[in-house]
Amino acid sequence: MRIAIDAMGGDNAPEEIIAGALESIELLGEDDELILVGPEDVIEAQLPSLKSRRGTITIVHAPDIIAMDDVPIESLRRKPKSSIPTIAKLAKRGQADAVISAGNTGACVAAFQMRMRNLPGVNRPGIAVVFPTPEGPVTICDVGANIACKPIHLYQYGVMASVYSKHLLGIEKPRVGLMSIGAEDAKGNEIVKKSRELMKTDSNMNFIGNIEGRDIFKGACDVVISDGFVGNVILKLTEGLVDGLFKAIKHELMEERLRLAMKFKPVMKRIYTKYDYNEYGGALLLGVNGTALICHGSSQSRTVRNAILASKRFNTEKINDKIIEYLSRTCVRTADGQSS
Amino acid sequence: MRIAIDAMGGDNAPEEIIAGALESIELLGEDDELILVGPEDVIEAQLPSLKSRRGTITIVHAPDIIAMDDVPIESLRRKPKSSIPTIAKLAKRGQADAVISAGNTGACVAAFQMRMRNLPGVNRPGIAVVFPTPEGPVTICDVGANIACKPIHLYQYGVMASVYSKHLLGIEKPRVGLMSIGAEDAKGNEIVKKSRELMKTDSNMNFIGNIEGRDIFKGACDVVISDGFVGNVILKLTEGLVDGLFKAIKHELMEERLRLAMKFKPVMKRIYTKYDYNEYGGALLLGVNGTALICHGSSQSRTVRNAILASKRFNTEKINDKIIEYLSRTCVRTADGQSS
Repeated sequence: MRIAIDAMGGDNAPEEIIAGALESIELLGEDDELILVGPEDVIEAQLPSLKSRRGTITIVHAPDIIAMDDVPIESLRRKPKSSIPTIAKLAKRGQADAVISAGNTGACVAAFQMRMRNLPGVNRPGIAVVFPTPEGPVTICDVGANIACKPIHLYQYGVMASVYSKHLLGIEKPRVGLMSIGAEDAKGNEIVKKSRELMKTDSNMNFIGNIEGRDIFKGACDVVISDGFVGNVILKLTEGLVDGLFKAIKHELMEERLRLAMKFKPVMKRIYTKYDYNEYGGALLLGVNGTALICHGSSQSRTVRNAILASKRFNTEKINDKIIEYLSRTCVRTADGQSS
Repeated sequence: MRIAIDAMGGDNAPEEIIAGALESIELLGEDDELILVGPEDVIEAQLPSLKSRRGTITIVHAPDIIAMDDVPIESLRRKPKSSIPTIAKLAKRGQADAVISAGNTGACVAAFQMRMRNLPGVNRPGIAVVFPTPEGPVTICDVGANIACKPIHLYQYGVMASVYSKHLLGIEKPRVGLMSIGAEDAKGNEIVKKSRELMKTDSNMNFIGNIEGRDIFKGACDVVISDGFVGNVILKLTEGLVDGLFKAIKHELMEERLRLAMKFKPVMKRIYTKYDYNEYGGALLLGVNGTALICHGSSQSRTVRNAILASKRFNTEKINDKIIEYLSRTCVRTADGQSS
C-alpha cells in the first residue's frame, strides 16, 4: 500500500510529520510505501541516510506551501505545486492508496473532494472524528466538511459513520444519534426533522433518535450525526473546555498545596492518555473515493504514526466497499431518486 | 417590585422553588412582593404560617401542570390554567414586574413571547446565559429561543447581550464574538457572514469578529453570539462534558488511592463553587417587554433565590430601557428598514 503524506502540514511540520512517518515504518508491511510530499531539500534534511530507509520512503517534490490560515480554495489556485494538491493528485492518478495531511483543513477537504471524487452513492463527503469517552469511543460526523447539509447528507453520514464504527472500532450495532436540541421528535430545525425521517425508514441503521449536547459523553450513542457547522463547534468546544478545565484544576491544586498538585500529576497524565484523541491518528474524510485522513494542526509524531496505521486498517478492512454496498441496498433516496 | 414565580417548574418543584423564594425574602426590600403560582393547596403546604410571611408572599392559583417533556405550544393550548401561561398573563396585565420559571423551557419561551411581546426595536427575543470561566463571566445568546435566526436577530443579540454584560456584569466594553468555524472572514455559513457585516457597521459595538468553539473558555471575548440551535448544543455539551470529566477524574483517583481522592475533594468543591452557574440564577429571555428568567430544570433553592435577586437587578438597572435606547440609535436596520 502506498501512503502519501503531506510533510509540510500542521504546526509541527516538517519535523514531527517526518518523525511520525519514520516511527511507523517498523509497524508496516514489506509491501508498504510512504511517499513524503513537500520541498525536497527540506524533507531530505530530516531523513536518515538513504541506506537506512529500507526502500520504504520516496519523496515527491512540492515546492510551495499552503499556510494554516490561507483561504482554502484561493490557496489551492495560487499554489498548485504545494503538498496538499499534490497528494490529492497522487491519489487521483492511482499513485497513492491513501493520503494524510495535518495541514489547512479547508484546503484538504477541497482538494481531496475535487481530485478523488465521491464514492458511488455518496452525495457529499463528511469528516468523522472519534471522541474517546468514559463510555467508549464515539464517532462524530460531520465536523466541518459540509456546512450546508441536506437531509440526505446527514442520513449518509449516519451510514458511513456506522460502517466505520462497526468495522474499525468493533461496535456490533452502533447506536446512531442525531444532534438536536431536545429528545422529542418535534425538536430541531427543518433539516434535522427531515433527516430523522430518512434515518427512521432505514431498518438496517440502529437509529436511536435525537440526542442533545449533554448526551455525547454519557454513553447515549456510538455515532453522533450533525451538520459540519455544529460538529465543528462541538469538536473545538470540547478541546477548549477540557483544556480550560484541566488548567483550572491545576490552578486550584497549586493554591491548595504544591505537594497535592504533584500527586495529582500522574492522575492527570493517565486521563490524558486514556482520552487522547491522538491515539486515533486523525479524522477520516468519509465518502471520497479513496482513503483520506486529516490530522489536527498540532499533530505530534505519534499522531502521524497512528494516522498511517489507521489509513492501512481503513484500506485493509475495505471500509469504502462496505459503504458502497450499504448505500446500494438502502431504501433511502432523495425525492428524485438522484444524488442532490 | 412584584415577582411572579412558577412554583411547579423544574425537577425539584415545588419544594426547592418555594424554599428559594423564602430564602430570598430577607434580601429583598420592603416594597417587594413574591407571587407564587401553582395549585393553591400544594403551595400552602410548603409555606410557613401566614403570620411569618411578613405580607411578602401572595399565591395565585393555577391548578394545571405542564410537564418538563410536554410539547410546548400544544401544552400551552391544552393547559391554559397551568403556572407558566399564568405568570405570563400576570406580566401582560401589569400585575407582575418579573416572571421566573424553572419549568419546560420551550413552553416558557412561547408563553413569555406571546404574552409579553417584544421590546420596541427587537425582532426576536433570545435566551442569554452566563458561563463562569477562568477568565471571567461570558454571556452567550441565544441558547435555544430562536433556531431560525436571521442576521438582524444575531446582530440584536449582540446588542442586548452587550448591554447586559456591561450593566449587570460590570464589563466596560464587552468584546462580542460571533460563533463560527474559523476566525477568518470567509468562514461560516451565509447567516453568519451576513451577521458579521451588520455587526461590523455598528461602531458602538466592540465586535471582535468570528470566534471558534475553543475560544469560549479562553477569555477571547465577553459575549458569544450564536443561533439558538448551536447555542443550545454549546450549553448542554458544556454541562455534560464538565460532568463527565469530573466523573473520569474521580474514577481515576479512586483507582490510584482512596486517600488521594479524599484530598482532592475540597479542590473539586472549590472548582464547582467558582464555576457554578447556579450563582447567576438563570437565563434571561432578552428582548421581551418585561423581565423574564428561565432557570435550569435541576434548579435548587439557591438558584431560585439568585434568580429572584437577578430579576431585581435587571429591573433596577433598567436594562430594557438601555436596550431600547441603543437600538433606537443604531444605524443597523434590515434591508427594508423594518423588523423582519
